[in-house]
Amino acid sequence: MESESPILIDRASAYGDGVFETIAIRDGNARFWPRHLDRLQTGCASLGIACPTPAELEQKMRAEMRRSDVRSEFASARLVVAAGDSPRGYRRTASAPPRVSVELFTARALPRVHYEVGVTLRRCNLRLAIQPALAGIKSLNRLEQVLARAEWDAADIFEGLLLDLDGRLICGTMSNVFIALNSTLVTPAITRCGVSGIMRAHVLQLLSEAGIECEIRDVSGDELDNADECFLTNSQFGVLPVKGCGGQEWGIGTMARQAQSLAAANGVPECAP
Amino acid sequence: MESESPILIDRASAYGDGVFETIAIRDGNARFWPRHLDRLQTGCASLGIACPTPAELEQKMRAEMRRSDVRSEFASARLVVAAGDSPRGYRRTASAPPRVSVELFTARALPRVHYEVGVTLRRCNLRLAIQPALAGIKSLNRLEQVLARAEWDAADIFEGLLLDLDGRLICGTMSNVFIALNSTLVTPAITRCGVSGIMRAHVLQLLSEAGIECEIRDVSGDELDNADECFLTNSQFGVLPVKGCGGQEWGIGTMARQAQSLAAANGVPECAP
Repeated sequence: MESESPILIDRASAYGDGVFETIAIRDGNARFWPRHLDRLQTGCASLGIACPTPAELEQKMRAEMRRSDVRSEFASARLVVAAGDSPRGYRRTASAPPRVSVELFTARALPRVHYEVGVTLRRCNLRLAIQPALAGIKSLNRLEQVLARAEWDAADIFEGLLLDLDGRLICGTMSNVFIALNSTLVTPAITRCGVSGIMRAHVLQLLSEAGIECEIRDVSGDELDNADECFLTNSQFGVLPVKGCGGQEWGIGTMARQAQSLAAANGVPECAP
Repeated sequence: MESESPILIDRASAYGDGVFETIAIRDGNARFWPRHLDRLQTGCASLGIACPTPAELEQKMRAEMRRSDVRSEFASARLVVAAGDSPRGYRRTASAPPRVSVELFTARALPRVHYEVGVTLRRCNLRLAIQPALAGIKSLNRLEQVLARAEWDAADIFEGLLLDLDGRLICGTMSNVFIALNSTLVTPAITRCGVSGIMRAHVLQLLSEAGIECEIRDVSGDELDNADECFLTNSQFGVLPVKGCGGQEWGIGTMARQAQSLAAANGVPECAP
């Protein structure tokens, strides 16, 4: 049926057939650009989309910064690489070029108090599906995150944590999570579901360089129950300590503070404790 | 972060935040409109999107049929109900109205030989993730189907069958599947993943009215190996017998022929054997 129509559809809106990056723009520069580029290329490869060259993507970013009214001292850019148009149907047209779009959004640093005393989370009811074919990448199929985010409206809940269908802790709706367990730092493996975060990778590198061990492995929901401390990472806000989740309460631990300080000293000044 | 930007994003293309129907248009009428309407309403309820009234949706359909150059004697309509625009971020804006769009596409009946001697399938490598929160509905998150459809290019492969991560047979990339096992007709339960097809429901009703038993239950990959016959259903093409899948070969069985004949006599004349 799918080859019969000359009318084309936009595959991003029809099927979520693409990947995106949300990039912190600081003083006119795309922060952690090489990492974003790498995840974009990985995502395109996973989906079989021909990723434009780094030069082409940089040129698009710069053009949007020139075009936009949004001040690029402190902003966010949404960069999308999607499969191009095709006739209706799941099959892609081999010859269609990918569609690249960039849009700049205003941003503001989070309130200082978030970094100072930590934020409060909830544990979401929605469980993430296990789909290794899409794990790690940031595709345009984000209904699970939308459904999870729709679970709460209270302004004092900053983020929701997500377990997978088998009960493993994976990540937040828009962030990655680290916990301290018996003085060891642990962050969930992103092999079955979840997004492999840019700030997560940056913090993991900084921890490693500082000689602080962090295990990347499966983490059970029970381990979250027993955590001694908890913090979040995200490319826009950096590192945020967590003071509570559901019934749990945490003091701000030394590991969260170390991660904040390391990030603040290495490209993410806004997250200084 | 998400409340800070006055620039709005289209949630359908950003997150796949919506549902759609592909509706067969025959002689100017939307075939099985009540069934499509029902699935659309179910999908909107699952996602928490305020579904427009049936009258509003019908009006949109009629307006598109008047507007479009596509002849509505034999066409397909793509009806989308998506969450409206919002600031960037997974959180929806409560007040944003849903966005409804309809587009008419030309269609042609499949070649007669498909209905007469059957089509050939492949078994896809991609496994469907188990996500009860999205099972049955036809959301705009369709990357699994895109990836599965990208597995083959051969023109003689009509469709690919999909198992879930646990090895159960679920459906095709764009169709539902029925198999005969020891003279009993079986179709996979659509409770963990897959789309609950309009033609599947129509055929199940026709079979029931004709006194032909069809079990709706979990079906293992082994049961597919041992099937005596196999056929597909889809709202556009009706019922299609399957003559082979991978190494398997089937003759066209009595059950496929019965389903074809029942559908052909009840609103789907193009699938007469």
